[in-house]
Amino acid sequence: MINVAILGYGTVGSGVFEVLNENKESISRRAGQELHVKYVLDLRDFPGQPVEKVLVHDYEQIVSDPEVDIVVEVMGGVEPAYTFVKKALLAGKNVCTSNKALVAKHGRELMDIAKEKSINFLFEASCGGGIPIIRVINSSLTGDEIDEVTGILNGTTNYMLYKMSTEGCEFDTVLKEAQQKGYAEADPTADVEGYDACRKIAILSSLAYERYFDFEDIYTEGITKITPEDMEYAAKLGRTIKLLGTSRRLADGTCYAMVAPFMLGQNSPLYSVNDVFNAVFVHGNMLGDAMFYGSGAGKLPTASAVVGDIVDAAKHLHVNIVTNWNSTPAVLKPLDEVTGRFFVRIKKEAAEEAKKVFGDVEIISLGQLPQECAFITDEMTQGAFEEKLAQIGDQVLAKIRVKD
Amino acid sequence: MINVAILGYGTVGSGVFEVLNENKESISRRAGQELHVKYVLDLRDFPGQPVEKVLVHDYEQIVSDPEVDIVVEVMGGVEPAYTFVKKALLAGKNVCTSNKALVAKHGRELMDIAKEKSINFLFEASCGGGIPIIRVINSSLTGDEIDEVTGILNGTTNYMLYKMSTEGCEFDTVLKEAQQKGYAEADPTADVEGYDACRKIAILSSLAYERYFDFEDIYTEGITKITPEDMEYAAKLGRTIKLLGTSRRLADGTCYAMVAPFMLGQNSPLYSVNDVFNAVFVHGNMLGDAMFYGSGAGKLPTASAVVGDIVDAAKHLHVNIVTNWNSTPAVLKPLDEVTGRFFVRIKKEAAEEAKKVFGDVEIISLGQLPQECAFITDEMTQGAFEEKLAQIGDQVLAKIRVKD
Repeated sequence: MINVAILGYGTVGSGVFEVLNENKESISRRAGQELHVKYVLDLRDFPGQPVEKVLVHDYEQIVSDPEVDIVVEVMGGVEPAYTFVKKALLAGKNVCTSNKALVAKHGRELMDIAKEKSINFLFEASCGGGIPIIRVINSSLTGDEIDEVTGILNGTTNYMLYKMSTEGCEFDTVLKEAQQKGYAEADPTADVEGYDACRKIAILSSLAYERYFDFEDIYTEGITKITPEDMEYAAKLGRTIKLLGTSRRLADGTCYAMVAPFMLGQNSPLYSVNDVFNAVFVHGNMLGDAMFYGSGAGKLPTASAVVGDIVDAAKHLHVNIVTNWNSTPAVLKPLDEVTGRFFVRIKKEAAEEAKKVFGDVEIISLGQLPQECAFITDEMTQGAFEEKLAQIGDQVLAKIRVKD
Repeated sequence: MINVAILGYGTVGSGVFEVLNENKESISRRAGQELHVKYVLDLRDFPGQPVEKVLVHDYEQIVSDPEVDIVVEVMGGVEPAYTFVKKALLAGKNVCTSNKALVAKHGRELMDIAKEKSINFLFEASCGGGIPIIRVINSSLTGDEIDEVTGILNGTTNYMLYKMSTEGCEFDTVLKEAQQKGYAEADPTADVEGYDACRKIAILSSLAYERYFDFEDIYTEGITKITPEDMEYAAKLGRTIKLLGTSRRLADGTCYAMVAPFMLGQNSPLYSVNDVFNAVFVHGNMLGDAMFYGSGAGKLPTASAVVGDIVDAAKHLHVNIVTNWNSTPAVLKPLDEVTGRFFVRIKKEAAEEAKKVFGDVEIISLGQLPQECAFITDEMTQGAFEEKLAQIGDQVLAKIRVKD
């Protein structure tokens, strides 16, 4: 029998408890031994609920119990999660977590401890909810050199952009609706400003390129400036607007990573990923294009990913699973030097000036927006783009990156 | 150093050789040791090519060499692959294969030998080319009870159907084009009759439901009867026609599996999987919907999947990786009792009769096809459908399963 302790009985924690009970038989068979939840840690009481029997309020009881083999951290936030997880690892207990903030900030140190102790620190559920992308990178795409990871990594913003595109509503309207449906939190900053996606692309890029990406170094732009007018242009161009976390390893060995809204073309497999779904696109030098799609959030999909890690930990209680993690920092190319194409909306009277500055770009007009027009630039560095854009000055209404 | 022998230097075999050389450094790092190709077995000579140095013509030289740790079988076909692989396993050598015919026919026995010998028989590349679906089922979705697997599992037929749908051409025309482009073989039977997809859905279903599916028991219908007219109706209905391998585990514990063309709705994530791409949709009782997308065939994507297995074998040279494989046969529900909806094309004059027999179905007409009309039935068992269809008799022009 393998004893599990769950830290936190919130959305994900109660989901993990439910999955372990609901699928108990098959999970134990796959783990090779019965999995038993010995403790659930939470400050609250849950009188009358099944969890009551195993509920404890003091973490010391868990970390000092030598019978606990696997600690599941699903509290969220950096503290006290970090302190608890570190103590568990130092006590020789395997840890599985869904906590992207913890992994992005302290993953390096925690993985090093796990390796030294011949145990595991696993975090499949920290990126992409139920999508098993981390194990795919670590265990399946091992014959490849990955050179691009691009994901729709946040379900809340994907839902909001989808609603804006299909129903033409304003950002504020759709945010309120998302909050009412429970898709967005009361303080939506982490989602709509891209901070959540930023931590996820930092983790995925670190694994994909075997170089450490510090999330604080990643350029991050949210969706708060996206308007229904941008969506109308996107539709006219046969495109759609998605918040992407994207990174590449370039031929010269440098990398870049960013989170920003992109006008995405129909040929991208990410184009049709709608609603609260997430997806991660990966390009390998041998594999070519691949994409992994699923529920990006939600109690049970996320819990399913956590339980997948628990089973893996149970199968490797005293063996560190080799991962691609490498603590050497990635050499980041300044974004100014990264090339791309850009969609620009300008005042109608600036059209001739734009053609002079950006070359013979095609000017797009929408009947319903007579005061303005737009164009898509050729491929150029972001630095060159900003320089050219400055020449049009205050005639610029909006700019969005373009991806095919 | 870990020594590898590759059996067969055809498309996949030369791809494996290329991937192992091209990404040698990262692959060896991930495997934990240097991977060295000691032998390549082929009947042919390749004078002047790098492979020449390690080429052998006699399998005995490989199987009797105690230094060979991993045998890579990429010859295809059941014999002599089966004999060679069995000998290798009995000699205590790990085996990785891309050979779906071998796995579908002898996988049970070969996995049992590997387990007994504490080695591995791995076959990621046998289903879905570069898509790492087998390891996902075995190692990631372990917290779930999977209840559906549906895939576009054959790149050749997906390319053909895509061309028929976008260009309106006939089956024979598009087959010739696919043969000219090298997407279809001179004898296209295995692809267009669905036999290839049948072996793949048998393997995937066996792993997903932990019950053995014999491919010979799986109903298999190819795409040879699909016409441009069917495609025109599909377009009118906002649908598309795809060859799907699909299986489900039902609430009563029985399962079914089949390969057939389906009229697929736009809400399916498989709807936009076009060209030679493959994708596998999986539904888990906790995970919900997930999809895995990538190159279904081709030299390097398939080789990438084989090399992923080689790395996994290298990391587990003397440890059998626990898989979901179970040799107990699945209890198959007769297809007659399986429910679904059906698209039916009939002669114009049978419209009233169809409404009488099938209830108040909506009759669809296309201006360019004045002699006929069509409808989609309500949900019913296949047995009931066939009975009703018999009442319209020779007025029926075509029938295709429907999936949303």
